[in-house]
Amino acid sequence: MSRMMKKRSAKAGLPPGSLVYVGEARTTASRITVMDYTADAVRETALQDTSQCGQFESADSVTWMNIDELSEPGIVAGLGAALHFHPLMQEDILNTDQRTKLEDHGDHLYIALKMLDWDGKRDAMDVEQLSLVLGANYVLSFQERAGDFFDPLRVRIRQNAGRVRKLGPDYLAYCLLDLTLDHYFIVLEKLGERIERVEDAVMTRPRPQTLSEIHALKRELVYMRKAVWPVKEVITSLRHLKSPLVSSAMQPFLRDLQDHIEQVIDGVTTYQTLLADTLATYLSTQSNRTNTIMKVLAVFSAVFMPLTFITGIFGMNFRNMPPLEWEWGFHVTVVGMLVMGGLLAAYFVRKRWV
Amino acid sequence: MSRMMKKRSAKAGLPPGSLVYVGEARTTASRITVMDYTADAVRETALQDTSQCGQFESADSVTWMNIDELSEPGIVAGLGAALHFHPLMQEDILNTDQRTKLEDHGDHLYIALKMLDWDGKRDAMDVEQLSLVLGANYVLSFQERAGDFFDPLRVRIRQNAGRVRKLGPDYLAYCLLDLTLDHYFIVLEKLGERIERVEDAVMTRPRPQTLSEIHALKRELVYMRKAVWPVKEVITSLRHLKSPLVSSAMQPFLRDLQDHIEQVIDGVTTYQTLLADTLATYLSTQSNRTNTIMKVLAVFSAVFMPLTFITGIFGMNFRNMPPLEWEWGFHVTVVGMLVMGGLLAAYFVRKRWV
Amino acid sequence: MSRMMKKRSAKAGLPPGSLVYVGEARTTASRITVMDYTADAVRETALQDTSQCGQFESADSVTWMNIDELSEPGIVAGLGAALHFHPLMQEDILNTDQRTKLEDHGDHLYIALKMLDWDGKRDAMDVEQLSLVLGANYVLSFQERAGDFFDPLRVRIRQNAGRVRKLGPDYLAYCLLDLTLDHYFIVLEKLGERIERVEDAVMTRPRPQTLSEIHALKRELVYMRKAVWPVKEVITSLRHLKSPLVSSAMQPFLRDLQDHIEQVIDGVTTYQTLLADTLATYLSTQSNRTNTIMKVLAVFSAVFMPLTFITGIFGMNFRNMPPLEWEWGFHVTVVGMLVMGGLLAAYFVRKRWV
Amino acid sequence: MSRMMKKRSAKAGLPPGSLVYVGEARTTASRITVMDYTADAVRETALQDTSQCGQFESADSVTWMNIDELSEPGIVAGLGAALHFHPLMQEDILNTDQRTKLEDHGDHLYIALKMLDWDGKRDAMDVEQLSLVLGANYVLSFQERAGDFFDPLRVRIRQNAGRVRKLGPDYLAYCLLDLTLDHYFIVLEKLGERIERVEDAVMTRPRPQTLSEIHALKRELVYMRKAVWPVKEVITSLRHLKSPLVSSAMQPFLRDLQDHIEQVIDGVTTYQTLLADTLATYLSTQSNRTNTIMKVLAVFSAVFMPLTFITGIFGMNFRNMPPLEWEWGFHVTVVGMLVMGGLLAAYFVRKRWV
Amino acid sequence: MSRMMKKRSAKAGLPPGSLVYVGEARTTASRITVMDYTADAVRETALQDTSQCGQFESADSVTWMNIDELSEPGIVAGLGAALHFHPLMQEDILNTDQRTKLEDHGDHLYIALKMLDWDGKRDAMDVEQLSLVLGANYVLSFQERAGDFFDPLRVRIRQNAGRVRKLGPDYLAYCLLDLTLDHYFIVLEKLGERIERVEDAVMTRPRPQTLSEIHALKRELVYMRKAVWPVKEVITSLRHLKSPLVSSAMQPFLRDLQDHIEQVIDGVTTYQTLLADTLATYLSTQSNRTNTIMKVLAVFSAVFMPLTFITGIFGMNFRNMPPLEWEWGFHVTVVGMLVMGGLLAAYFVRKRWV
Repeated sequence: MSRMMKKRSAKAGLPPGSLVYVGEARTTASRITVMDYTADAVRETALQDTSQCGQFESADSVTWMNIDELSEPGIVAGLGAALHFHPLMQEDILNTDQRTKLEDHGDHLYIALKMLDWDGKRDAMDVEQLSLVLGANYVLSFQERAGDFFDPLRVRIRQNAGRVRKLGPDYLAYCLLDLTLDHYFIVLEKLGERIERVEDAVMTRPRPQTLSEIHALKRELVYMRKAVWPVKEVITSLRHLKSPLVSSAMQPFLRDLQDHIEQVIDGVTTYQTLLADTLATYLSTQSNRTNTIMKVLAVFSAVFMPLTFITGIFGMNFRNMPPLEWEWGFHVTVVGMLVMGGLLAAYFVRKRWV
Repeated sequence: MSRMMKKRSAKAGLPPGSLVYVGEARTTASRITVMDYTADAVRETALQDTSQCGQFESADSVTWMNIDELSEPGIVAGLGAALHFHPLMQEDILNTDQRTKLEDHGDHLYIALKMLDWDGKRDAMDVEQLSLVLGANYVLSFQERAGDFFDPLRVRIRQNAGRVRKLGPDYLAYCLLDLTLDHYFIVLEKLGERIERVEDAVMTRPRPQTLSEIHALKRELVYMRKAVWPVKEVITSLRHLKSPLVSSAMQPFLRDLQDHIEQVIDGVTTYQTLLADTLATYLSTQSNRTNTIMKVLAVFSAVFMPLTFITGIFGMNFRNMPPLEWEWGFHVTVVGMLVMGGLLAAYFVRKRWV
Repeated sequence: MSRMMKKRSAKAGLPPGSLVYVGEARTTASRITVMDYTADAVRETALQDTSQCGQFESADSVTWMNIDELSEPGIVAGLGAALHFHPLMQEDILNTDQRTKLEDHGDHLYIALKMLDWDGKRDAMDVEQLSLVLGANYVLSFQERAGDFFDPLRVRIRQNAGRVRKLGPDYLAYCLLDLTLDHYFIVLEKLGERIERVEDAVMTRPRPQTLSEIHALKRELVYMRKAVWPVKEVITSLRHLKSPLVSSAMQPFLRDLQDHIEQVIDGVTTYQTLLADTLATYLSTQSNRTNTIMKVLAVFSAVFMPLTFITGIFGMNFRNMPPLEWEWGFHVTVVGMLVMGGLLAAYFVRKRWV
Repeated sequence: MSRMMKKRSAKAGLPPGSLVYVGEARTTASRITVMDYTADAVRETALQDTSQCGQFESADSVTWMNIDELSEPGIVAGLGAALHFHPLMQEDILNTDQRTKLEDHGDHLYIALKMLDWDGKRDAMDVEQLSLVLGANYVLSFQERAGDFFDPLRVRIRQNAGRVRKLGPDYLAYCLLDLTLDHYFIVLEKLGERIERVEDAVMTRPRPQTLSEIHALKRELVYMRKAVWPVKEVITSLRHLKSPLVSSAMQPFLRDLQDHIEQVIDGVTTYQTLLADTLATYLSTQSNRTNTIMKVLAVFSAVFMPLTFITGIFGMNFRNMPPLEWEWGFHVTVVGMLVMGGLLAAYFVRKRWV
Repeated sequence: MSRMMKKRSAKAGLPPGSLVYVGEARTTASRITVMDYTADAVRETALQDTSQCGQFESADSVTWMNIDELSEPGIVAGLGAALHFHPLMQEDILNTDQRTKLEDHGDHLYIALKMLDWDGKRDAMDVEQLSLVLGANYVLSFQERAGDFFDPLRVRIRQNAGRVRKLGPDYLAYCLLDLTLDHYFIVLEKLGERIERVEDAVMTRPRPQTLSEIHALKRELVYMRKAVWPVKEVITSLRHLKSPLVSSAMQPFLRDLQDHIEQVIDGVTTYQTLLADTLATYLSTQSNRTNTIMKVLAVFSAVFMPLTFITGIFGMNFRNMPPLEWEWGFHVTVVGMLVMGGLLAAYFVRKRWV
C-alpha cells in the first residue's frame, strides 16, 4: 500500500497538470505497438516515437495502439498533443497509482483500472495499472509492464476470429476489458487454491505458519477487493453512458461484463467470509488446545503433589516417628499412595479432563 | 467455492459467446423431456436431439421442455438456433457457475437461479444450477443433474390438478419457481435441525467436534445465503417487469413468491445470528472451563507447596536440629500441617475457587 | 425458529392456494365471537359455523368477528367464500408462520403480525400469529390461541368508553393494533427486568449460569426484533395507503402507532447493545479473574520452589557434607529461607501481583 | 433504560389519548412562569392555574410560558383546551418517556427532545424530557424538573441583550434549542474528561476498576447517542418545514444548530471509537500480562523442577549408593546444580522469557 | 479530541453570533499578508489592521489575503464588516473547532476544513483549522498557525508559473485546496511508513511496545478519517454548486480534487483494515506464544513430577523398606527414572508439544 503511494509526495506543490511518472522505475524503454485493421485487412507496426500518431486519427480503419513499459512522459505528451487530451488526463495516465474510473471527454473516453495477474514464482498477485482511451476510430492501451495479457486478442484480430474485426473500436475496448476480467477470475482461483490449502491445514495440522498464511491471504484479498470493487461502477457507468462512442449494440456485452465483475466481487466477498471463519476456527482450535494442555498440567499437579507431600512426611527425620517403626508401614504407604493416585486419576477421567 | 470456479479459467481468452460447458464432468447424456398440454390434453415425449424443437414454437399448446444432465453444448446451440437465443445467453445456460439473474430478451425471458436440495447421505446441502427460459408458448428448464424436483408438477399437469392446465406458460414458470423455493424451505429446516442439535451439544456436552460442526454449519449458511439472496431481486424484477410474457393475473402469485423468498432470507439471517451466538457461547463456556481448571491447579499448588516445603525442612540432615529431638515434634508437625492445609483450603472455598 | 418452520415442508409440492393449517396441533375447536355495534347498541353472539357470516356484510353496524384457537381450514374457507377472499390470502391466514405484512385487496385489507405476550410461568416471551382483515363495515381477527388480549377493548365497546363506538371499523382495527403494541411494551419491560438482574449479577457475583442467562436473553431479543421490526413497515404503509377503508381522520392515530413501534424498536436495539456490553463485561471480568488466579499460582510457585529446592539440598545423604556439621547450620538455613521467601513475596507485592 | 419504561405498562389497555403522567413521582407542584415581552417591555408573572392562559393567545407580545416539575395532567389539559392541542399531543407532553420528534399541527409545532445535564455529585449524566410548543405568538416549554438551564436566556430577555427581544417566538424557540444543545457540549466535555482519565489509567496502571469505568462510560455514551441522534432529524425537518410559524430569516440560525448537533454526534461517535479502542488496549495489555506471568511461572518451574529432582535422587536412602561415598560428591553436585540452573536461566533469558 | 472541545463550553449561554476565539492560546499576533495580482503584475503587502481591506473589494485584480496565527476577534470583525460577512460565519471562522463544511452566502462562499501536517519531531500528525472565503475578486485564508504550506503557490504567483495568474479567484481557491490535499498524501505516507514498521515488528519481534504503537496508529487514523471524510462532501457540493463564483472551467480541476480526496479516503480505509489485521495478527501470535509457554510448563511438570515423587518414595525413612537393601536398587531406580523420563519426553515430542 505505502509502496504504491511513495512517489506521490514528490508531486506535492507542483502546479496541477504537471507530467511526472509515478510508479516503479523502469530500465527498459516504453514500446508502442500498433494494430490497424478493417474487416478485410490488418497492419501491425511498432513505433519509436509519437510523431506519426496523428495519421491514425482520421483513417477509416480501427487503430489499436498499445503502449507498455510506460515511463516516458514524452510519449504521453506526444499522444496527448496529437489526440487533444486534457492535461489532467495525461497526468492521470502517467500516475500509475490512479483510482479506477471512467471519464467522458466528449470525443474520447478515459478508463483507468487495475490489471491483476498471478505471479507463479511468488505464488502471489501482481497489480498493474491499465489506462484505456477509446476514441471514434482508435483505442489506446497503456500498460505499466510488458506482458502477454492481450495476446489472445491479437491472435483473434490477425486470424479474423470472432466478431472483433467486424465491429468498431468500442467492441475492441470491450475485448480488452473482458480479457482483464478473465484474469480476475484466474487470480481468484489461485487465491481459492491457497485458501483451500490453508483450510485443510487448520483442520488437520494447525501450525504457527498457518496463522501467517491466513493473514497473508487476508491482505491479498483486501488488495484485490480494492482493485476490483470500483470496476463495477465503471462498467455500470459505461452501460448508462450517453455517448456516440459506445453503440447500443454493445449493451448485451456490457451486461455480460457487469455479470462477470459482480461474480468476481461475490467471489472475493465469499473468500473473505471464509477466511474470517478459518481464522476464527484456528483461534478456537488454539483455545481448545490450550485447554487440553492446561488439563494435562492440572491433572499431573493434582495427582502428584499430594503424593509427593506424603513421601515428604515420611522422609522427615524426627527421632520419634512411630509410623516409621511399623513392620508394614512402607508397604501400606506405597499401596495407599497408589490407590490415592488411582482415585484422583479416575476422578479426572470421569470429569473428562483426560 | 473454488470448486465452482475451477473450470472458469479454461475460458479465459476465448471470444465472448463461445459455448463451453462449465461444471462437473458428466458421463450420462443430456435428456430432453417434453410436456405439451392444453386445458384438454397432455402429450409427453422424450427427444433425442433438437431438430424437432421448432415445431413447438408456433403451436397453441403450452410446451414445457426439461433438459437435465446438461453437458452437451450441441443441445443448447440447437435450441438456441431454433428459438433465436442470443449467443451470450446460450453461453450463460452452459456455464453452470452462473449468477442468479433475470434477463428480458423481448420475446423470451431468461432466469438463472440455484436449486438447493438436501443430500440425506452426506447430511449436507446440494447446489445445482437451474436455467429457465419463458417464451410466448413454451418454458424451457435446464437442470445440471437429473432429479425428481419437478415430479409433483408433472403429476398435477397429468391429472389436471390445480390451475396449471388452465393457465399459460407464465403460470408454469411460476410453478417451477415455487417448487424450487419449497426446497429452500426444506433445506432450511434440515439445517435448522442440525443447528438445534449443535446448540444442545454446546449447552450440555461441548466437545472439540462441536466446534467443527458449528464452523461447518456457518459455511453452509454462507453458501445458502449466496444462493438465496439474489433470488429476491429476480422476483422483484419479475413483478415490476413490463413484458407481455407475464400477465397481470400473475401478480398475486409473484407477491406470494416474494413473501416466500423473504421468509427464507429471514430464516437464513436468523440462523446465522443464532450460530454466531452459539459459537460465542461455546467459546465463553470454554473460557469458563479454563478458569475452572486453572483454579483447581492453583488451589492444589497453593495448598501442597507450603506443606511439602515444611516436610522438606524436617527432612534436612543437619546434625544439630533441635526440633527433631522433641518428643512430640512429629505429631505436632503433622497436625500443624493438616490444620494449615485445612485453613488454606477453607480460604479458597470461601473465595469460591472450589 | 426451526419449531416455527417444521410443518412448512408438509406443503412442499402442493398447488399454490391449498388450505393447510400450519402451526401447533390444537385439541380445542376454533371459536368465533361476534360483536356487532353502532353508536347506540351492541350485540354479542358466538357462532358455531360460518353460514351466517354473510349477513354482517351489508349491515349498517360495525362487526368485529374474533376467531381464536384457529386450526380448522373450514372456517377460513367459509369466511373466505362469504367475504370473497383470495385463495392465497386464505392460505396465509392458516399459515401461522406468516411474515408480518399488509396487503390491499381493494375491498378489504389484510394485515398479518405477531402478538407477543409474557408467560409469567416460563419467565419468557410467547409469540402468536394475529391476522386482521379490515373491510368496509367489518373487522376480522384471527388468533392462534384463546387469550384475554382484547378484553379491555371489549369492555370499552360494551361501556361505550372512548371513541370506539362513534368511529368506524378502521378505528376498531387501530385499537386492536394499539393493544398489540401495548403488549410489546410489556414484554420489553419484562425483558428489561431480566436484563437488569443479569447486569447486577455480572457486576457483583458472576457465575457460569450468568453466561447462559445472557445468551438466553440475547436469543429472546433476536426473536423479538424479528417479530417487531417489520411491523414498522406495515404501519408506515398503512399511513400512506390510498384506500377508502382508512379514513384521513385516522392519520394522527396511525402517527401515534408509528411512534410507539419506533420506540419499541429503539428499546430492543438499546437492550441488544446493553446485552452485548454486558457479555463483554462478563468476559473481560473472567479474563481478569484468570489473571488473578494465574498470579496466585505463579507467586506460590516462585516463592516455594526455590525454598523446597534448598531443603532438598540439605536433605541429600552425601557422607561428606560439611554444612550439615555446622553448629548453627539448621538455624541459619531456616532463617535464610524465611528471609528469602519474604524478599520474593515482597518483590511480588511490589509488582502488585498479590 | 428499563427505569424509563417502567410506568408505560400502566397505560396498557387505556383508550388512546388518556392523560396519564409517565415519569418519576413528584412531590413538588408544577410551576408556571410566564415572560411576556415586546421589543420595548417585559412582564414576568407566575401562574397558579391555567385559567388565564387564553389571554396570551391574541396579544401582540411574545409569550413564553415555562412549566417545570411537570406532573399534573390538569395543567396540560387546561393549556391544551385553551390553545386547542390534539389529545394525543397532550398525552405526549405528559409522557416523559417520549421519543424525540417534531410534529406540525398547523397553528402550532410540537417538539419533544431530551435535555442533558451533568450531575457533578454523581459525576454522571442527567436526562430530562423537554417539550416545546411554538405557536403564532407564544412558546411553551415543559420541563420534567426545575432547573437553571434557561436562566441565561431570561437574563438576555430582561436586559434586552442580543436579538431575542427584537425577533419573534421562532427565535425564542431557537434560543431554547440552542441552550439545550450547549449543554450537550458540556456533557460531552465532561465525558471526555472521564474518558481521558480512563485512557491514562489503561496506559499507566490498569486495574479491575478501570474495566468497570470503561464499561460505565460505554453505557453513558449509548444513552447519550440515543438522546442526541434523533435531534438531528428534528432540526433538519425544522429547516425544511413549510410553515408560517418559522420565518425564512431563521435559516442561518437553524443551519448553525444543525452544525452543532452534527458536531455533538461526531463527538459521541469519536468517543465511542476511542473507548472501544481503549477497551481493546486494556484487554490486550491484560493478555500481555498473563503472558508475562505465565513466563515467570514456566521459568521457575523449568529451572527448579529438574534441580529438585536431583536433590531427590541423592536424598534417597538406598544402602548401596556409591556417589554418596565420594569425597567431593556433595560439592560437585551443588556446583553442577548451580551450573545447570544457570544454563537453564540463560536459555530463557536468551529466548526473552525473562 | 477532548482537547479540541475544551473551550467550547465557555460559550454556553452566550447569544448566538458572539465572537469568541476558540482554540489554543496564542502569544504571537495575527498576521495579514496580501497578494494582489493580475496577469501582468503582483503586489505583496503586509497589513497591520483591517481598515484598508475594503479597497480590495472593487479592484480589477485578484486579491489573496492570508491571515495566520488567528486569535484576534477584531480582525475577523473588521474583515467581516468590510466584506459583509454574516455574524454566524464570523463566529465560525474564530471557532477553530469548526466542522468541515461549505456555505454559499450568495456573494461569497465559506469553506472550513482541516489542514494536516506531519510533525517530524513528534513523528505524529498536526491538525489545524483552515477557513477559506471566496468572493468575486478575492480569496481569504485563515490559518490557526503560521506555516509554509502555501509557499509553493506564492512562488508560482510571483514567477507567473502555471495557470494561476491567468485565471480568477476560483482557481486560486482551488490551488489552496489542492495544496491542502497534497499534504493529506504526505501525512498518509508517513503514517504508512510507521504502519510498515509496526507490521515488520509484529512479524519478527513482537513486544509490548508494539501493541502501544498499533493503538497509537489506530487513533491517528481515527483522527485523520474524521478530518478527511467530510472534505469529500465539500468538494462534491462545490462541483454541483450553482454559483457565479465558480466558473464552469473549474469542473475538470474539481473532478481531479475529488479523485484525490477519494484516494486519500481509500488509503485511510485500507490502512485501517491493515492495522486491524496487524492487531489481530499480534494477538493471535501472542496466543500462540502463550500456548508454547504453557506447553513448556506442562512438559516440565509432567516429566519431573512423577520422577520427583519416586525419589520421594525412596527417601522415606521407614525402618523396614526392603528395596533399599537391594544391591543394585539405586542403580535400577536411577536408570528406571531416566527411561521413564525419556519415554514421557518422547511422548510429548510425538504430540508436538516440544
